[in-house]
Amino acid sequence: MLRLGPLAAAGRLLPAGPRLGLPCPSGGWVSLSRSRPPGPVGDRGLLARQVRAAAGSAGGGRSPALKTPKGTRDHPPAHVALRDRLLAAVVTCFKRHGAAAIDTPVLELRETLTGKYGEDTKLIYELQDQGGELLALRYDLTVPFARYLAMNKITNMKRYHVAKVYRRDNPATTRGRYREFYQCDFDIAGQFDPMIPDAECLKIVHEILSDLQLGDFIIKVNDRRILNGVFAVCGIPESKFITTCSTVDKLDKMPWEEVRSEMVGEKGLSPEAADHIGEYVQLHGGLDLIEQLLQDPKLSQNKLAKEGLGDMKLLFEYLTLFGITGKISFDLSLARGLDYYTGVIFEAVLLQPENDHVEEPVSVGSVAGGGRYDGLVGMFDPKGRKVPCVGVSIGIERIFSILEQRLKASGEKVRTTETQVLVTTPQKHLLAARLKLISELWDAGIKAEMLYKKDPKLLKQLQYCEDTGIPLAAIIGEQELTDGVVKLRDVATREEVDIPREKLVDEIRRRLEP
Amino acid sequence: MLRLGPLAAAGRLLPAGPRLGLPCPSGGWVSLSRSRPPGPVGDRGLLARQVRAAAGSAGGGRSPALKTPKGTRDHPPAHVALRDRLLAAVVTCFKRHGAAAIDTPVLELRETLTGKYGEDTKLIYELQDQGGELLALRYDLTVPFARYLAMNKITNMKRYHVAKVYRRDNPATTRGRYREFYQCDFDIAGQFDPMIPDAECLKIVHEILSDLQLGDFIIKVNDRRILNGVFAVCGIPESKFITTCSTVDKLDKMPWEEVRSEMVGEKGLSPEAADHIGEYVQLHGGLDLIEQLLQDPKLSQNKLAKEGLGDMKLLFEYLTLFGITGKISFDLSLARGLDYYTGVIFEAVLLQPENDHVEEPVSVGSVAGGGRYDGLVGMFDPKGRKVPCVGVSIGIERIFSILEQRLKASGEKVRTTETQVLVTTPQKHLLAARLKLISELWDAGIKAEMLYKKDPKLLKQLQYCEDTGIPLAAIIGEQELTDGVVKLRDVATREEVDIPREKLVDEIRRRLEP
Repeated sequence: MLRLGPLAAAGRLLPAGPRLGLPCPSGGWVSLSRSRPPGPVGDRGLLARQVRAAAGSAGGGRSPALKTPKGTRDHPPAHVALRDRLLAAVVTCFKRHGAAAIDTPVLELRETLTGKYGEDTKLIYELQDQGGELLALRYDLTVPFARYLAMNKITNMKRYHVAKVYRRDNPATTRGRYREFYQCDFDIAGQFDPMIPDAECLKIVHEILSDLQLGDFIIKVNDRRILNGVFAVCGIPESKFITTCSTVDKLDKMPWEEVRSEMVGEKGLSPEAADHIGEYVQLHGGLDLIEQLLQDPKLSQNKLAKEGLGDMKLLFEYLTLFGITGKISFDLSLARGLDYYTGVIFEAVLLQPENDHVEEPVSVGSVAGGGRYDGLVGMFDPKGRKVPCVGVSIGIERIFSILEQRLKASGEKVRTTETQVLVTTPQKHLLAARLKLISELWDAGIKAEMLYKKDPKLLKQLQYCEDTGIPLAAIIGEQELTDGVVKLRDVATREEVDIPREKLVDEIRRRLEP
Repeated sequence: MLRLGPLAAAGRLLPAGPRLGLPCPSGGWVSLSRSRPPGPVGDRGLLARQVRAAAGSAGGGRSPALKTPKGTRDHPPAHVALRDRLLAAVVTCFKRHGAAAIDTPVLELRETLTGKYGEDTKLIYELQDQGGELLALRYDLTVPFARYLAMNKITNMKRYHVAKVYRRDNPATTRGRYREFYQCDFDIAGQFDPMIPDAECLKIVHEILSDLQLGDFIIKVNDRRILNGVFAVCGIPESKFITTCSTVDKLDKMPWEEVRSEMVGEKGLSPEAADHIGEYVQLHGGLDLIEQLLQDPKLSQNKLAKEGLGDMKLLFEYLTLFGITGKISFDLSLARGLDYYTGVIFEAVLLQPENDHVEEPVSVGSVAGGGRYDGLVGMFDPKGRKVPCVGVSIGIERIFSILEQRLKASGEKVRTTETQVLVTTPQKHLLAARLKLISELWDAGIKAEMLYKKDPKLLKQLQYCEDTGIPLAAIIGEQELTDGVVKLRDVATREEVDIPREKLVDEIRRRLEP
């Protein structure tokens, strides 16, 4: 695995545009130039009145509220540039594992989504009934994937999907939790030999988190069958398995005592049963713990638990071959909220750097999760035919928040454009010359800009290069036009060389070669 | 400008993955392998019952309707691969012109969208009132951009935005018209000297349509001020300008007689006024027509028309410097439906190939459009401060339909994955060896797959390479393990060479270099 810093790694993966051969000058690259003050725009009379009339017909003359909906946000250029690099790094990993991309609509029939998310169903955004079908916004990418497989009778597919999903959650925007956010999913559908695709999903999480250098992390692994086996041997009735599971899932956010009192109070388990569950779900370890539980007098008698533990042992065998067991923890407290998981479940959390004051590294939040859902596709198939699936979702928004904070702290600027040359003139009345030259550059595939002024000052033009990180300025004055040359200026070093016009494109390419 | 076929051009721009050094074998690359029949999945008893219970709680045991919402569609891997190439080509052009990317939420406050789209406001998707703000799905990317500028007090920005928009339109899916579709927008906001940014927008349309080699095209240009001037000199009251504009806009789809009768019948214009309008809006030409209208005894007396015609002349001057007037037509019938345009408007249409039977090339549909909207940002600013804007939207869905049909006709297959090597074993009991080798390849950044079977047949493994276009197979059997080598097979030529294991990664890279 190549170990690169997140920006270096991402830079390596930038989809388009050559790498500029210049070091980034510090300052001024994040926002687009706002140096020129806005001039007043002449009221165009009739047209202005038309526009006002159109506005008035809606808001009664009042300006509309200037905001995005609660829990959503705009992404300015510096965001998008960073996010695109992050997404490219994730997608590169998905492609390294042979996945193909699909896309599904943001809108789904409401009935497609109902009954898949347990208590979270209330968080689904519904569309107004404007006649026709009842619609909702997708809540995740897993249910649409299952619908896609069933609808197209696909029984075998390895796909990734990077897209936005919608949840009417309480936003916690400072921690990167929004109502509109990206999910990056990788899933393997098909009937295969046990735990081979499951192990690959964990390998993918390991690769991505290592590549992005987010700091130390751990991937917790459990199995719904083991959990259900635990519940069974603790005397919980089957009807309460799912709801008990939701409560266990809170163990990463609250201490056992609170979880126990929710079990006894809200969920109506007996104190003895809760205590008994507590003995199990506070366990975590590796292969040794699996072996220990396989010998557990009660659990080893439960068919489901035994199946789950057997598969867990196999999984650890494969993960040993992948060399990643150092970051894997078999953790019986991991439950995952969603209804549809049926086997292995997992969740990756970042750890705070260890120090002397804490005994164990503290989790700072989940950045990836997933599991096996063998029943979901069958819920969509008219004949109930099943397609076993396992998949992983990368929590790109939380990772983005971390990278963004880190970037802020470093003072490093992200360039938001890829312009290679600014076409400039040092004298007046040369707009035509600039337009002709820039057109030649565009036609040759050179990324070029010019200021949209008839007679901009040279200083303003050069300042624009510095502000936006443009490495070269192509300067044409009367003399250059007469001589058939263009003065090429290196913005960083301020060196200027006359280049014969017909050789300009080649010279720019040569200078900006990676 | 480099002239390349659409796929060749796109191939050049593929964001990730090396170019494979092999010609594509024909057949079998579009769909993922479905050759292995689905095996039955064991009913997992309790879990199956849980899943059924969850399903039952929603749909009463009935399977949900297996479809996407009306007017929307899933995009299978071959679609996404082609679409990503197309979008990359468009974005490359936007970046060549120095634009930065922004992103805005799919959801907007309803009041943000109201009063911007004229008669089309009824096509906006509204969200159900679930408590909190009243929301809607964005209808285009222009209004959110204006909202973004006003909200952030940005007076100067060149941005592109590629994202999905939503319209409750009557879908015409065969012609690439959907209710959820991509828009690719490039806009220049700021107070600049006249027509310089406007000319660049037209240059961009010209570059993209030339690059994609979609066939001959024409870019129609007009100006809302000229149209309003025409209406004024024909005696139409100002209150009927916008509605008359909508009717004129239908001239590309219906003959003048029908447009005239809508003007007189539905819109209540006098027959004389309609006839008078008809004399103007059926004109089209170039610089000569601009000059002619500047001399027109009535029109030259109208302040707005004169302003528009003066700017149109300037625009043609700049377009001459760009060398693209050959594809530009000043066309007085062009009106564009949206309310917010205030100056130059334009629309690019593809032309059917000329032949002897038709006198003039026939338009087969609009593939790009845009214009100047100087009042829209001011509608959002509490103090009504204006930011003049001009922009263009590329009709990517229609272009996609054309490219897709062309690809179908050519019989060419699009590879949907980028896998370089399949890790294979010729004998049984070698799963561990495969897992170890594939892990080494992944860690070295090689794109590798293996079949998720304990003991797959070699023939099946090689067949998978052929089906999905994987160029190399890395084969390890007992002998190879003993010798410390891997047999590397070229899938196309069937040549096999033993490579020392420590040199495998370098050899794969060498073979797959572009």
